[in-house]
Amino acid sequence: MDTEKYADGPCPIARGLCRVGDAWSMLILRDAGAGATRFDQFQKNLGIAPNILTRRLAALTDAGLLERRRYSDRPPRDEYVLSEAGRDFLPVLFALGAWGGKHFGDAPVSRLVHVTSGAEIDPVVVDRSSGLALGEIDMRIEVPA
Amino acid sequence: MDTEKYADGPCPIARGLCRVGDAWSMLILRDAGAGATRFDQFQKNLGIAPNILTRRLAALTDAGLLERRRYSDRPPRDEYVLSEAGRDFLPVLFALGAWGGKHFGDAPVSRLVHVTSGAEIDPVVVDRSSGLALGEIDMRIEVPA
Repeated sequence: MDTEKYADGPCPIARGLCRVGDAWSMLILRDAGAGATRFDQFQKNLGIAPNILTRRLAALTDAGLLERRRYSDRPPRDEYVLSEAGRDFLPVLFALGAWGGKHFGDAPVSRLVHVTSGAEIDPVVVDRSSGLALGEIDMRIEVPA
Repeated sequence: MDTEKYADGPCPIARGLCRVGDAWSMLILRDAGAGATRFDQFQKNLGIAPNILTRRLAALTDAGLLERRRYSDRPPRDEYVLSEAGRDFLPVLFALGAWGGKHFGDAPVSRLVHVTSGAEIDPVVVDRSSGLALGEIDMRIEVPA
């Protein structure tokens, strides 16, 4: 994608996708949200080629979604933790997961549950002030002047 | 991404990403949601190379997110409209846009407004039954047995 054109353009979806717009990057953020921090953990969880993982971790760090921290000097080793912007992306992933679970495949999928009550959590995108689901609102897009 | 491994796996996020996990595909769905249906419209809006657009439209159609309809026989021409699953993805994109607008860049972004009232819509991901924002819930992931 031509990130020069989109990274600071008026569409906030495109702005976001310039930072996180490929499946590996999103799965890395998913795993970081589940507690993975180290190269080997991401590699093992994802079955991703090391050179691709290296590039994606660097891109996510440059984009400000992961923060790199040195955890060993000898040998030099870094770990990766979600930044505030990275953590803030997790609800978007969960909404994507709710959609993926609803439309694709019959086999059981992982579920989100409340830690204490065990109640299942069903992510839905709503308008913050009215509480209406976005699929039920007549909307239009207003482009900045 | 190894879609063989993920397309029917237990993680619903990965299942979804196997169908829509790249930036161009998501922007095509965005434009379809805004009313684009024809090859030339997508190409002009996105500035995407024709061969890439052809591949993405075919993949989104195969994945069941777009439906292809013949609108001219001579010359043969198809248009693409969102399926139910494709339309259902739009709220996820709007949540991604809310995140993109919040964290990246200072220039004004496009806004979603209510058609009749003109009120701004602020997409947020909540738990359907409790109404709590997902970022504010202590959650764990329960993997199917």
